[in-house]
Amino acid sequence: MTQPPELPDDLLIHASDEVRIRQDLALVALGKRPADRVLRVGRLLDVHTRRWHADQEIVIRARRIAYVGGAGSWPGEAAERVHEPDRHAVPGFGEVHKHIESSHLTPDREAALVLPFGCTWTCEASHEFSNVDGARNLDFWLAARRAGSPAKIFPLPGSAVPPTAYEWGGGHYGYEEQRDFLRDTLLVPGLDEVMDWPAVWDAANPSHERLWGMIRATFEARGVVEGHAAGMRGAPEINAFAAAGMASDHEAWTPDEVRDKLRRGLFLELRPHSLPEIIQALVADGLADWSQIALCTDDRSASDTMRIGATDHNVRLAIRNGLAPEIAVQLVTINPARHMRLTPWVGAIAPGRYADMVLLSDVESFIIASVWADGREVARDGRMTVAVPEIAWPDWTRRTVRIDREITAADFAIHAEPGRATMQAALLRPFHWSDAFITAELPVADGHVQRDAARNITKFAIVDRFSGEGRTAKMFWLGTGPRTPGTALACSMGHDKHNIWTVGSCDEAMALAVNTLREMGGGWALVRDGEVLARVRYEVGGLMTARPPEELDREMQALYQAAETIDWMYEPTFSPRWSPGFPERLAFATLTCAPWRWVLVAPSPLAPEGFVDVGTGRPHPVVW
Amino acid sequence: MTQPPELPDDLLIHASDEVRIRQDLALVALGKRPADRVLRVGRLLDVHTRRWHADQEIVIRARRIAYVGGAGSWPGEAAERVHEPDRHAVPGFGEVHKHIESSHLTPDREAALVLPFGCTWTCEASHEFSNVDGARNLDFWLAARRAGSPAKIFPLPGSAVPPTAYEWGGGHYGYEEQRDFLRDTLLVPGLDEVMDWPAVWDAANPSHERLWGMIRATFEARGVVEGHAAGMRGAPEINAFAAAGMASDHEAWTPDEVRDKLRRGLFLELRPHSLPEIIQALVADGLADWSQIALCTDDRSASDTMRIGATDHNVRLAIRNGLAPEIAVQLVTINPARHMRLTPWVGAIAPGRYADMVLLSDVESFIIASVWADGREVARDGRMTVAVPEIAWPDWTRRTVRIDREITAADFAIHAEPGRATMQAALLRPFHWSDAFITAELPVADGHVQRDAARNITKFAIVDRFSGEGRTAKMFWLGTGPRTPGTALACSMGHDKHNIWTVGSCDEAMALAVNTLREMGGGWALVRDGEVLARVRYEVGGLMTARPPEELDREMQALYQAAETIDWMYEPTFSPRWSPGFPERLAFATLTCAPWRWVLVAPSPLAPEGFVDVGTGRPHPVVW
Repeated sequence: MTQPPELPDDLLIHASDEVRIRQDLALVALGKRPADRVLRVGRLLDVHTRRWHADQEIVIRARRIAYVGGAGSWPGEAAERVHEPDRHAVPGFGEVHKHIESSHLTPDREAALVLPFGCTWTCEASHEFSNVDGARNLDFWLAARRAGSPAKIFPLPGSAVPPTAYEWGGGHYGYEEQRDFLRDTLLVPGLDEVMDWPAVWDAANPSHERLWGMIRATFEARGVVEGHAAGMRGAPEINAFAAAGMASDHEAWTPDEVRDKLRRGLFLELRPHSLPEIIQALVADGLADWSQIALCTDDRSASDTMRIGATDHNVRLAIRNGLAPEIAVQLVTINPARHMRLTPWVGAIAPGRYADMVLLSDVESFIIASVWADGREVARDGRMTVAVPEIAWPDWTRRTVRIDREITAADFAIHAEPGRATMQAALLRPFHWSDAFITAELPVADGHVQRDAARNITKFAIVDRFSGEGRTAKMFWLGTGPRTPGTALACSMGHDKHNIWTVGSCDEAMALAVNTLREMGGGWALVRDGEVLARVRYEVGGLMTARPPEELDREMQALYQAAETIDWMYEPTFSPRWSPGFPERLAFATLTCAPWRWVLVAPSPLAPEGFVDVGTGRPHPVVW
Repeated sequence: MTQPPELPDDLLIHASDEVRIRQDLALVALGKRPADRVLRVGRLLDVHTRRWHADQEIVIRARRIAYVGGAGSWPGEAAERVHEPDRHAVPGFGEVHKHIESSHLTPDREAALVLPFGCTWTCEASHEFSNVDGARNLDFWLAARRAGSPAKIFPLPGSAVPPTAYEWGGGHYGYEEQRDFLRDTLLVPGLDEVMDWPAVWDAANPSHERLWGMIRATFEARGVVEGHAAGMRGAPEINAFAAAGMASDHEAWTPDEVRDKLRRGLFLELRPHSLPEIIQALVADGLADWSQIALCTDDRSASDTMRIGATDHNVRLAIRNGLAPEIAVQLVTINPARHMRLTPWVGAIAPGRYADMVLLSDVESFIIASVWADGREVARDGRMTVAVPEIAWPDWTRRTVRIDREITAADFAIHAEPGRATMQAALLRPFHWSDAFITAELPVADGHVQRDAARNITKFAIVDRFSGEGRTAKMFWLGTGPRTPGTALACSMGHDKHNIWTVGSCDEAMALAVNTLREMGGGWALVRDGEVLARVRYEVGGLMTARPPEELDREMQALYQAAETIDWMYEPTFSPRWSPGFPERLAFATLTCAPWRWVLVAPSPLAPEGFVDVGTGRPHPVVW
């Protein structure tokens, strides 16, 4: 038996390193070189055929699997042997579409949070950070893995950079950028969710060329074009979306939508909120082929993950709604790996892949006993047993809220025409997906158009955090924000451009809330009567914190508690997106993708007041 | 409704053209632009879910599908409408691994042969032509499509160019060549069957670096590395093969081999000869997930295709052996398309894909009523209804048998040591897959070692057809070739290097047979008593003819008939590869991949007499 050579570091994936690693693995499999470790398990699930194999050994060399077979069948020698006779081994779970930013943890912290839940790889839907610092997107996403994190991150550059042509700052991706990302590393599987549907189908849309440039670069590199077909339910739209080259959708909300999209060739990525109804319906259909379906998390906060779990929660939810556990496992392993063309590396307990395994103590209840990643145990009984290296996030990740002046109440004033006692105002509600905005006649005082709390009308604003100038767009919104006087809420996470949004009953409070974020480098601020009631710090990218999830959660809980002292307005709009109470989901109410129509963005050349129909590009005054 | 623009020609696939085509398709799907044609069918199979949908319309624009849905659901206008109420539409069939060369027809002729059988796309395993003219491989394979053939050819450059380090001439592929092929066109999905297993695992093998260079280039371009795991049945070898990065195998012969390979992550491509037993066993297993399996043809002559069919034969065979027709269809549509990462273009009746459909009059018996390709009917009742453009194959395709001198009987003489009455000779049999060759003591006469027909021993030779010099290697073989005196058979198809091989009871006859091929530009020649009994002309690449299949078949039948007048030796070796009678399969007996060990190649620097153990690289004298 020859001695093993020094192997290249395969934290990242390089074709030339793959060659040396796989040459070595083949010799280990043949028993001609020693292995580092053999893990013997009671049962092992082959996700290619959905079959269990009893008493199996998994032979590990460095971070990879060299051999899988019946216990004792491998002819070689190993430095270490581990026996878990009562465990059921399944592959490490993968996320086919997840925004790590939505955990509000940096990738190193997020890895330590989700690994104990079995999640060993993530296709990072990176358009949040892409929109904050587009140029350094890959640097950001690969930093934790480079430093040795056992969690694999496969970043998909955001198609929505900027989200629409009416937004700007933080990054601008087109053909060249996407071509370079795909050339830079094999870790980039494709293009993140194409969500600006009007820009796809309508040649007159000012984002049309930019977006198709990214699609072209992705086709050129044999990458995957991820879709986002929110609200698309008619057959013509679904067909058009698939014909445009979109490979997937994660926005289906009903069983019929899933059926209609599957048959047009879209790969369906199911999120928990609609998963129960959809799984029940597909099981009732007797669906025989689940190969075009995956489960996905999309957005989940660290607080929620601590409470309900990560990918394992999605699997348990599918099982509880009638899906066979073996199929549920396929939906978070081989199916997403195959869709993303990552099968040489993840998705199965098979030779050549990273040695990422989840050991279950019970399959039906899906209890995770331990998790292996990169060839060693990384978590047991829900806790990490190794440390994920913590990154000293550099300045460029921490200085992303660029407002080079103090924001004042005057920034939020909405001027009336001279001599008018009232003015017509355009109103939006959160998740108001209509072709037309709402209008109301609002009183004028001191030359400014006023809120009307009695009619649930308050003020909402976007403050640009990229130019340094703090350019501000503002208008009246219905059914959200504080009714309590002297109060404002602000946040630097405002999908997808991630400018600062603020909603308040008082312009001074809005200014204080925004200035608080400016000082913190991003996060949440709740202000009342000139005082900051609660702060949540997202010091990295204005979206995440590099602190432990427990600390973040404590801040979030304190924010929720403070928010309970506030009287929040409410108008029902789109359920389950919108519900009464603390308006946390306003962070998603600033989206500009389908099915949104009228939105408020930072003032831009194409929408001087920031108020624009993203379906047609028509701007409109906020009052008249 | 706006008028449609001039679309790019999408006979080949270019990312920039895809953009314009898909922009147009989306507008057609939305009903904003007219379609060319609507095909309405009685039923349509969605291969993503394995479900039939009744009364469907397929909206076609140029060569692509813009829309699929219930009859009357598309909101647009079409120039033409076709209604086939009694037909069951399934996607055009795809071949995941086929050597078109083995039909012995040029790609234009082959297209016209297989289209009526429903085969609309082929992943061309191009190592035959690659070995004849490596540099112009893509030019050759794309010529028919460029000229308008509705059959799509996706060429995979041969990994076996040359097949082993002991062969040469006609092409030499390494990292740079494969990198350039993958850059040149999206029609190249990856690397054709890696079959030189010793060169993969053994760093000392002289092809090791060349082969891994091609694998590296394929990984870099996100391509698929096709495998060829013939004879690999032990778990260590199967694991080593998968660990090395091989994505597939088409050489499994038994159900256990299939089970053992599937679970190591290999995509299984089943060939007809082993299909019945394997399908029966997997059906009996209750295999629930068939997504990692395809059917494939590999090698089939035009004569056989005329007799039994093309891909449709494979499907019928699977159905007859117990597979549900819907799964059988998946095995020649979505499964191979997904494996080859070609889903944006083929494998489903879905938007964006080429409009290739097979209309069945009966599903269970799998009777093909008509075939559509590129958006129009191309065949009906087994006959082409449109003409496939015939290519005027240029000189470089027709002058590939380069022997710049007359071959003579002396070229085949095997010299004895002076004064010896007998000599020891190395013997091979066809498909003799042993570590050791056979030996025999043979008589010497006139200074030359002699055949011994009484012991079934005759002479076999390889004549190089690339250098111009006609370098010749010769030795004694057992159990093949003519016992009839004065007889020889020669052929310019000799897998995989495709030098000329000849077997004969007489050196003069061998010379005449080879000279006959030299004049014809390749094919078969059967010679007796100084006369050419039969000729089959493969004037293109020495492997194919550009004539109609009927003409080729007539020549082949004439050859078979002439061969019946000859007494052919026989020794049983590997069944089903080898059987008594006309030794047609000698064309495959010159392979050098696993599980072959001792082979005869043209004289080469590493094997001066051409006799070499390809597993170890050890050459050996043919007599001593």
